[in-house]
Amino acid sequence: MTDKLPRITASKIIAKSRLFQIEQMEITFSNGNEVEYERLKGSSRGGVLVVALKDPHTVYMVREYSAGVERYELMFPKGRIETNEPVEEAANRELQEEIGFAARKLTHIKSMTLAPGYMGHLTHVVLAEDLYPAQLDGDEPEPLQVTTWPIAEFEQLAMQNDVTEARTIAAAFIIRSLLEQRD
Amino acid sequence: MTDKLPRITASKIIAKSRLFQIEQMEITFSNGNEVEYERLKGSSRGGVLVVALKDPHTVYMVREYSAGVERYELMFPKGRIETNEPVEEAANRELQEEIGFAARKLTHIKSMTLAPGYMGHLTHVVLAEDLYPAQLDGDEPEPLQVTTWPIAEFEQLAMQNDVTEARTIAAAFIIRSLLEQRD
Repeated sequence: MTDKLPRITASKIIAKSRLFQIEQMEITFSNGNEVEYERLKGSSRGGVLVVALKDPHTVYMVREYSAGVERYELMFPKGRIETNEPVEEAANRELQEEIGFAARKLTHIKSMTLAPGYMGHLTHVVLAEDLYPAQLDGDEPEPLQVTTWPIAEFEQLAMQNDVTEARTIAAAFIIRSLLEQRD
Repeated sequence: MTDKLPRITASKIIAKSRLFQIEQMEITFSNGNEVEYERLKGSSRGGVLVVALKDPHTVYMVREYSAGVERYELMFPKGRIETNEPVEEAANRELQEEIGFAARKLTHIKSMTLAPGYMGHLTHVVLAEDLYPAQLDGDEPEPLQVTTWPIAEFEQLAMQNDVTEARTIAAAFIIRSLLEQRD
């Protein structure tokens, strides 16, 4: 195993937009190799993805327009964390904005990356339980379609054509493992 | 359900680097709302992620420096698809570059997205079986550490500190479901 971390010897922002920053870096590996890398800098606060239990056997999901792929995708409620907002609070806010429920029990289960080779972005997976109706206005351009899915059928979920996001599939199986361990 | 897809009424590239392009779009939803979006354009060919079976109970993994998070991450072999390269061929090339094996049987299982809201990038998950030693030179700045993981312990894999990538976790569970269905 390579124990010695490569050294970042230089870095600068080479392009910038409202949402994205592209950073160029010079990296020297422990074998002496020097390589130029590019990575995306996102929000340092990251985002939350919320798996909310409707009952012990069922989760809530939403169908949302996804501009990157130009179609509707079935996914778990998620969103950006606001400044100084704790992870669990962000999860509870997104739930209220996207599915019209709040949770009495929120548990941060795992922090995931999207593409650690060129993105630092973190998505915090939160399990939401003991729900009650509560609505907050979100910033969605149209109302999301809220739906449910049986936990016993996550294999089928993962193979749906409108379920492609790795975070959705990873979070589903992580949460199911956790719930099975509890039983 | 919203059946009518939003319309992209304008789009332009607003920033560009060696690896990334940032596209700005005007989108009109079926309710009349007009929203400005930004998305990343990556390679249109996408990438492959290869789950290679060492034996019926064990997969190969690699430990690779990940500049986005500035540490080593344990992951499945993966890489970009080259121009005109079929998915299975790209998978077999990456295997030979990263773990020193080729596969006689390659099966494209699922195409995943990273963040469909603002990225179009596709990662094709390929199951590689019936391996034999074969080495190709890759473009890695240092040799990857090759290791193995028991399929029966993917729950523990998903909770490792150096396993954060949603694609790794999603691919592991998808492949295990598939192998269980075969038995």
